[in-house]
Amino acid sequence: MLVTEESCPPAVPGATMPQEPRQTDFQLVRVKSTWCRIKKGEALSNDEDGITLSEAKIGECISEGGISWIIEAPIYFCYKVVETYDILEPSNTTLLWGHITDPQQIELAAASKRKLRRFIVIDEVVDKLYGSKVRAYFQENNVQHKILALPTTEETKSMDLVLNILHEVQKFSLDRRTEPIIAIGGGVCLDIVGLAASLYRRRTPYIRVPTTLLSYVDASVGAKNGVNFLQCKNKLGGYTPPVASFLDRSFIQSIPRRHISNGLGEILKMALMKHKGLFDLLKNHGKYLLDTKFQSCNGLAHHGDAALQTTRIAIETMLEELAPNLWEDDLDRLVDFGHLISPELEMRVLPSLMHGEAVNVDMAFMTYVAHARGLLDAEQKEQILQCMRGLELPVWHSGCSWPLIQRALRERLKHGGGQPRMPLPTGLGVADIFNDTSEETLERAYELWVKDCKPKVTVLPQA
Amino acid sequence: MLVTEESCPPAVPGATMPQEPRQTDFQLVRVKSTWCRIKKGEALSNDEDGITLSEAKIGECISEGGISWIIEAPIYFCYKVVETYDILEPSNTTLLWGHITDPQQIELAAASKRKLRRFIVIDEVVDKLYGSKVRAYFQENNVQHKILALPTTEETKSMDLVLNILHEVQKFSLDRRTEPIIAIGGGVCLDIVGLAASLYRRRTPYIRVPTTLLSYVDASVGAKNGVNFLQCKNKLGGYTPPVASFLDRSFIQSIPRRHISNGLGEILKMALMKHKGLFDLLKNHGKYLLDTKFQSCNGLAHHGDAALQTTRIAIETMLEELAPNLWEDDLDRLVDFGHLISPELEMRVLPSLMHGEAVNVDMAFMTYVAHARGLLDAEQKEQILQCMRGLELPVWHSGCSWPLIQRALRERLKHGGGQPRMPLPTGLGVADIFNDTSEETLERAYELWVKDCKPKVTVLPQA
Ligand SMILES: NC(=O)c1ccc[n+]([C@@H]2O[C@H](COP(=O)([O-])OP(=O)(O)OC[C@H]3O[C@@H](n4cnc5c(N)ncnc54)[C@H](O)[C@@H]3O)[C@@H](O)[C@H]2O)c1
Ligand SMILES: NC(=O)c1ccc[n+]([C@@H]2O[C@H](COP(=O)([O-])OP(=O)(O)OC[C@H]3O[C@@H](n4cnc5c(N)ncnc54)[C@H](O)[C@@H]3O)[C@@H](O)[C@H]2O)c1
Ligand SMILES: [Zn+2]
Ligand SMILES: [Zn+2]
Repeated sequence: MLVTEESCPPAVPGATMPQEPRQTDFQLVRVKSTWCRIKKGEALSNDEDGITLSEAKIGECISEGGISWIIEAPIYFCYKVVETYDILEPSNTTLLWGHITDPQQIELAAASKRKLRRFIVIDEVVDKLYGSKVRAYFQENNVQHKILALPTTEETKSMDLVLNILHEVQKFSLDRRTEPIIAIGGGVCLDIVGLAASLYRRRTPYIRVPTTLLSYVDASVGAKNGVNFLQCKNKLGGYTPPVASFLDRSFIQSIPRRHISNGLGEILKMALMKHKGLFDLLKNHGKYLLDTKFQSCNGLAHHGDAALQTTRIAIETMLEELAPNLWEDDLDRLVDFGHLISPELEMRVLPSLMHGEAVNVDMAFMTYVAHARGLLDAEQKEQILQCMRGLELPVWHSGCSWPLIQRALRERLKHGGGQPRMPLPTGLGVADIFNDTSEETLERAYELWVKDCKPKVTVLPQA
Repeated sequence: MLVTEESCPPAVPGATMPQEPRQTDFQLVRVKSTWCRIKKGEALSNDEDGITLSEAKIGECISEGGISWIIEAPIYFCYKVVETYDILEPSNTTLLWGHITDPQQIELAAASKRKLRRFIVIDEVVDKLYGSKVRAYFQENNVQHKILALPTTEETKSMDLVLNILHEVQKFSLDRRTEPIIAIGGGVCLDIVGLAASLYRRRTPYIRVPTTLLSYVDASVGAKNGVNFLQCKNKLGGYTPPVASFLDRSFIQSIPRRHISNGLGEILKMALMKHKGLFDLLKNHGKYLLDTKFQSCNGLAHHGDAALQTTRIAIETMLEELAPNLWEDDLDRLVDFGHLISPELEMRVLPSLMHGEAVNVDMAFMTYVAHARGLLDAEQKEQILQCMRGLELPVWHSGCSWPLIQRALRERLKHGGGQPRMPLPTGLGVADIFNDTSEETLERAYELWVKDCKPKVTVLPQA
C-alpha cells in the first residue's frame, strides 16, 4: 500500500521557489458575504458599502519547505456581574432578562409569543432551603422550566456529573442561543454547570447564581470552570465565562459560620495584595461580618455598610486582576497569593481544611516570608496575623511541614515555567511578585512562623 | 433558617443613591504587578517604566438596583498551519519543534538537558500503516514517548474515548506548558484529541497531523473539536485551536478512492463559494487527483501541480472564512454551504453516505435552488453538476426527500436565529447568503433536481 516516493520538491504554483523565505501579512475584509485576504497596509476602497475589516490576521510564509500560515484571531468575551436584591421575588426579572444588554432585545424576547424556557441546575442543599421559592419564581413568571437538583460536592465534582447534566439538557431540548442554563449553588455547582454549558454545542450561555460567600466573591467573577479528575482538583475544565453572574447576598445567610470564614480567606487575599481599605474593613468589622453573615444593610452605626463595601471591593479588585488575564496566559498573578503551598496542603489534609482555610495557612506563612525578606515590619506582620485570627481563620497547620513547603514550591516552579512567581505583601494592601526568595530566607521564615503560630502543647503529666 | 428580612435598600458606600444610573468605563493598567482600573481616556503618565495597558475593559454601572459590571476581554488565539514533506523522516524536526515560532525558544529547548517527551494519539488503522515509522521517528530523535493507538471512528467518537485519553495523559505526567499532545489520524482522531487536550488543565497545547484528505483541508484548518453525544454529531466540544497543524500529503496515498471523493466534496464547497480557479482545477484535474490520490509532485505536463495547488487554495480559502469567525459567532457563513440539508440526510441514511457525499447531495440540490432563483444559468448549473460527477460524488440521494428538506430547513431556521442564512452560488466561484428563498422556488428547484438527477429506473418486466 505504501508507495515509497521521492520527496516532493517544494514548489509554488506558477513560480520557481524563492531562496529566502517570503513572508506576507494579510488582513481580512468581508465584501458582501465573502472574506478575502488583502495585504496589510493595502488601501481599502472605502466607498463600497458593507465592507467589514476583521481583526484576525493571517501571515503566510513561503519557504523551501512549503507554505506555512500563522493565524491570529481575537475572540471577545463579554460577561456581566450584577448585584441584585430579592432575586427570587417574581417581580424581579434579573434572572430572566438580566443577562441581555440590548434593551431592544429584551423587548423583542418579552413580546415573543413563544413561552420562555429555562433549565436550572441547583445544589441539593440549596434546593432544600430555597427550592420552593425557585419553583414559585418560574411558575409565576410563566416560564416552562426544568429544575435539576444535584448533590454538588467536592466528591461528586466530576465529568460524570457533567454528563448527567448534559443528558438532561438534551432531553429538555434547549435552544442554545436564547435559553441560558442557570446554575444556583456554591462554587462546585457553578463550576460543574459552567463546564457542561461550555461543552454543549460547543458553547451554550449560562448564568451563575452563587449561594456561598466564596463563590460570591470568587467563582462568580471570572471565567474558569472545571471538575476534579483522578484525585486532582479542577484537572479538567475551561475558561468560557458565563453570560452573567447574579449576586444576591441573602443566600449567604444560611451557610455555616465556618464557611463565612472560608470565603473571608479569599477576600483577605485581595485585601493583602492590593487594597488597604479592604484590609481595614476586615480588621475592623470581621467579627461583625461573621456574626451577621453579610446580611446587614445599613448595619449598626459604626459598622456602616461593611458587608456591602467588603463584597464590592472584593469583586472590584478581583475583576481588575482577572479581566486582563481571563485565560491565565500571564503567569504573574497576584491572585495566586495563598495558592502556592495550599494545593499540596489541601491534598494532604483533606477534608480537615476547607479551601479558604488552606489558603490562609499559606498566606500566614508567606507573611512571615515577606517579613523575613524585610518587606513587612514586625508590626505589619502582627496586624495581618491579628486580622486572620479575627476572621477565625487558621494561621498554622500541622500538615504544613517544611518538606511539604519545599515540595509545593518545586511544583510551583514547574508550572510557572521555571520561576516561582511568588506574590508577597510589601506593606499593608500592596504587593509585588518575586522570583528571588532564597532557601535560607524561606527556612528562617518557617522557623519564626512555627515559633509564633504553632500552638504550644501543654504536656499534661500522665496519670 | 431562612430569616425573612426586608429588602436591602440599595446603597453606595459613602454616598446617597443617584437617581439616574451612572455608567463609568474603565481601562486596566498594570503598574509593577498590580492591575488597576483607570477611567477611560484618563491620561497615563508615560514616564513610569513597566506600565502595561490591557485591552480588557470594565464598565461599571451604579443604579438603584445595585452595581453591575460588564467585562469585555479579548483572547488572542494563535496557531500555525504548516505544509511539510516527509514528516516522519527523523531528520525533519517539524513534529518536534514546528509549533514554536520564536527561534530562541527552539534553541533553548534543544539545548536543555531534559529529555524531550511527547504523548501521541494515533488512529489504529494509521498505526498499522505508519506506526513503525512513527516509533522510529521518536526513537531516533531520542524522545521519551508514549504512543496511544485507538480505534477513532464515528461510533467511538465519544466523551468515553476522551476520558480514556486523559487517563493516559495523566499517567504519562505531561508538562502542560512545553509538551504538546500530538494527534495523528483522520478528522475523528483530531477532533477527539483536540477536545481532550483543551480540557486537560483547562488547556494543553496539541498538534494535528491529518492523514485523510478531508481532515487535511478541513479539520486541520480551524479551531473546532468535538465528540458525538446521544446520537448527535459533534454535540459536545469546543473551539480551542491546536498550536499547529502539520500537513504531509503523503498520508493520503493510503486512503480508499471513495475517501478521496469525500474530501473533494469539501474542497468543491470552497470552490463553488469563492474560487473559480479552484473550481477549474477540480473540473480539469478531478479524475487525475483521484487516480493519483494527491501524490503527484510536478505531475504530468498538462496537470501541472494540480494536487499542490488544489490543497493550497482549499486551505487558503478556508482560512479566510474561518479566521475572522473562529468561534462561529457570526451565523452568516459561506462554509455552511452544503451543510443545511446534509445534517438531516446524514442522520437518516447513515452509514450509506459519507459526510462529503451528503454535503455534495446538499450542494447539488442548492445548485438547482440557485438556478431556480436565476442566480445561475443552465450552463453554469450543468458545469457544476458535471464537475461533481467527475469527482465521483453523488448528485442525488433517495433519502433526500421533499419532507426531509423542509424539516432540515426548519431546523436551520432555529439555529440561525430565525433566518435560513442560505449560501448560494451566484456564478462560478462566487456566492452570497440569502434569506428570502420562497417555498415555491425551493419546490420548483426540487422538482427539476429530481427530474434531472434521480437515476431513471429501468422497469424490468417481471419474470
Ligand atoms: N471557577 C472559579 O473561578 C472558582 C473560584 C473559587 C473556587 N472555585 C471552586 O469552588 C468550590 C468551592 O466553592 P464553595 O466553597 O462554594 O463550596 P461548595 O459549592 O462545595 O458549597 C459548600 C457547601 O455549602 C452548601 N451550600 C451552598 N449554598 C448554601 C446556602 N446558601 N446555604 C446553606 N448551604 C449552602 C453546599 O451544599 C455545600 O455543601 C471548589 O470546588 C473550587 O474549586 C472555583
Ligand atoms: N474539527 C473540524 O473542523 C472538522 C472539520 C471537518 C470534519 N470534522 C470531523 O472529521 C470526521 C471525519 O473525518 P475523516 O473523513 O478524516 O474520517 P475518519 O477520521 O473517520 O477517517 C476515516 C477512515 O480512514 C482511516 N484512515 C485515516 N487515515 C488513513 C490513512 N492515511 N490511510 C488509510 N486509512 C486511513 C481511519 O481509520 C478511518 O477508518 C467527522 O467526525 C467530522 O465531524 C471535523
Ligand atoms: Zn482559591
Ligand atoms: Zn463538512
